[in-house]
Amino acid sequence: MASARFLSLKSFHGAATTLSPFHRPRIHQTSGKVRAFSALMSPASTAIFYQNHGPPDTVTKVIEIPPVEVKANDVCVKMLASPINPSDINRIEGVYPVRPPVPAVGGYEGVGEVHSVGSAVQGLSPGDLVMASPPSDGTWQTHVVKDKSLWHKIDKSTPVEYAATVTINPLTALRMIEDYLELKAGDAIVQNGATSMVGQCVIQLAKIRGIHTINIIRDRTGSDEAKEKLKKLGADEVYTESQLDIKNVKSLLLGLLTHFSFMFKGNVPEPVLGFNCVGGNAASLVLKFLRQGGTMVTYGGMSKKPVTVSTSSLIFKELSVKGFWLQKWISTGKTEECREMIDYLLGLVREGKLKYDMELVPFSEFHTALDKALGKHGSQPKQVIKF
Amino acid sequence: MASARFLSLKSFHGAATTLSPFHRPRIHQTSGKVRAFSALMSPASTAIFYQNHGPPDTVTKVIEIPPVEVKANDVCVKMLASPINPSDINRIEGVYPVRPPVPAVGGYEGVGEVHSVGSAVQGLSPGDLVMASPPSDGTWQTHVVKDKSLWHKIDKSTPVEYAATVTINPLTALRMIEDYLELKAGDAIVQNGATSMVGQCVIQLAKIRGIHTINIIRDRTGSDEAKEKLKKLGADEVYTESQLDIKNVKSLLLGLLTHFSFMFKGNVPEPVLGFNCVGGNAASLVLKFLRQGGTMVTYGGMSKKPVTVSTSSLIFKELSVKGFWLQKWISTGKTEECREMIDYLLGLVREGKLKYDMELVPFSEFHTALDKALGKHGSQPKQVIKF
Repeated sequence: MASARFLSLKSFHGAATTLSPFHRPRIHQTSGKVRAFSALMSPASTAIFYQNHGPPDTVTKVIEIPPVEVKANDVCVKMLASPINPSDINRIEGVYPVRPPVPAVGGYEGVGEVHSVGSAVQGLSPGDLVMASPPSDGTWQTHVVKDKSLWHKIDKSTPVEYAATVTINPLTALRMIEDYLELKAGDAIVQNGATSMVGQCVIQLAKIRGIHTINIIRDRTGSDEAKEKLKKLGADEVYTESQLDIKNVKSLLLGLLTHFSFMFKGNVPEPVLGFNCVGGNAASLVLKFLRQGGTMVTYGGMSKKPVTVSTSSLIFKELSVKGFWLQKWISTGKTEECREMIDYLLGLVREGKLKYDMELVPFSEFHTALDKALGKHGSQPKQVIKF
Repeated sequence: MASARFLSLKSFHGAATTLSPFHRPRIHQTSGKVRAFSALMSPASTAIFYQNHGPPDTVTKVIEIPPVEVKANDVCVKMLASPINPSDINRIEGVYPVRPPVPAVGGYEGVGEVHSVGSAVQGLSPGDLVMASPPSDGTWQTHVVKDKSLWHKIDKSTPVEYAATVTINPLTALRMIEDYLELKAGDAIVQNGATSMVGQCVIQLAKIRGIHTINIIRDRTGSDEAKEKLKKLGADEVYTESQLDIKNVKSLLLGLLTHFSFMFKGNVPEPVLGFNCVGGNAASLVLKFLRQGGTMVTYGGMSKKPVTVSTSSLIFKELSVKGFWLQKWISTGKTEECREMIDYLLGLVREGKLKYDMELVPFSEFHTALDKALGKHGSQPKQVIKF
């Protein structure tokens, strides 16, 4: 039946397009073949589809995908929730280094309920709560059929919006805290973009380990409320960029390699590890906070500005500048390790120890959520599609 | 006798200035004390002295320092050669993070012949060739008295200009090749500032290990000759910045994260390690050459421009950016290890396997050499004072 996986979108797109078996909507060919047995079929699926790369708000369309076969090792999942992450947008734009060939269905992480299982599947049954793990392309559709190995069963009491979002952002926070330095209780981390989902997770996951956080946020209306919110999550210090700029200018006038250490009253040591998801000035602030020999890990570039490092801070302050790419980490055969960490993180969620802002949006309003995720309406919480 | 080390420059500078026993000219106080025995004294010394930090060509003066006592564990060395390194200039300017308190005598590395030894000194005799190892402040003078532990005896057949210069630059090249990655024969290194002394050493030390080098040099009159010279030292590829800029623009137009790999005809693999002593565009070129997961080590900033790294090259190309500071490395109790490496490097020099450009200048023409080292006459070879 493998040939059934190479099908054509001709019937509803007018032009024939060959699809590979991976990262593509599976479309059941209902004509031209006589089946010798009754195949298990998925329901028809509604999907966010793009024929070509381009601006996500113009190239994505809602389409109906006919039922596809659920093969012996497949599991058909009725999706419950899936987020719109920046990397989803970059995949559609065609600028993400690893992306499915077009045409494709959008989305990369998500959670759902098992609808039906292939004849050889054990350990998963209809009604089970499962998430795409490792995440894989095509989660923005009502029914997803994938090999059983791509689904991870989780506790049914898990809030679906957390299960839908736990892999890309919270796991990034956990890995960054764990992978670069051996931090111990009492150490400190400095980060920019602290109101992001990763930022919120860093604060809470660090706090659990007794690690302090110094947090930098953008200047905007409501930054006082944002500060309070982050402090409630466990942030030790929260500054807006402009607060630090003033100090910065003073320090530059003094010609000092300042670490801003004068700002702390003995509670928070100079941070040894920094996280940057903004670039530009906000990255320079993270570097300035770091102590001698510190490391800054970049995991995003929201300002679209590069990271600039002075020669003296590389040589005399002995700073290291690195990057973190979750997808690369996940793709190196770490499925089991990844699932253990997800179970740990979702356990924290269920215990109320890990929370972050999200906005749940019905699937029917996908394009409204997409506009928010594209930043058309200013800063917005993470958009999570609820099917 | 320890008190004899805290003396005054009053006699020849008009204002009293207390000197610590380290990093200072030792001036023998010839009046006001009745000695009970005949102390071993050094000859009077001619030194390059600065009272305050500032532009080296204005604050440095030639002074005569009266004889100082050669104590039991001291060795008095008649200096033969000492270089003018950029860090020497930065110390005088007062911008180097580790520097002697003023007033001070300039210079940090150098070689000389033992003139006399204190009563408790064994293993060193007048006539021995010794170098300051670890290097220490105050080598720009005709006679230097320091504790025996600060002198390293070397083979008398060593050319003095190499012994005078082996620590700061060739050792930097060796450590950078050894310390960051486990390179194997067939690997490649990319570096900018390839005509510098470190650059020339990197080419030769890499070649000895079967490691390829891709070298970037500034555009200037005579760059073709410079290319030929570096190729004779063993460079695999040498490019001027403008050569790469042209390719770079093409690549940028194509929207590619180019590694310039198309430029190589299969001889030189994409480099895994890069060295930067320039900053700015020349550092960006090193980063562009690096292969996935590569590391760039910064050891200088000749352009006075910072290092700029794109977010995508940190995250998706997984580059690491670090710094190397020889003085920090040396100061961490590595004297013996350091001397072993110096012996290795000087062995290569004696075998004709390691050479680099220098200009020997008589001590009487110090300020001419200083002007050249300050870049007043364009690009010049390393200035080495010959006493």
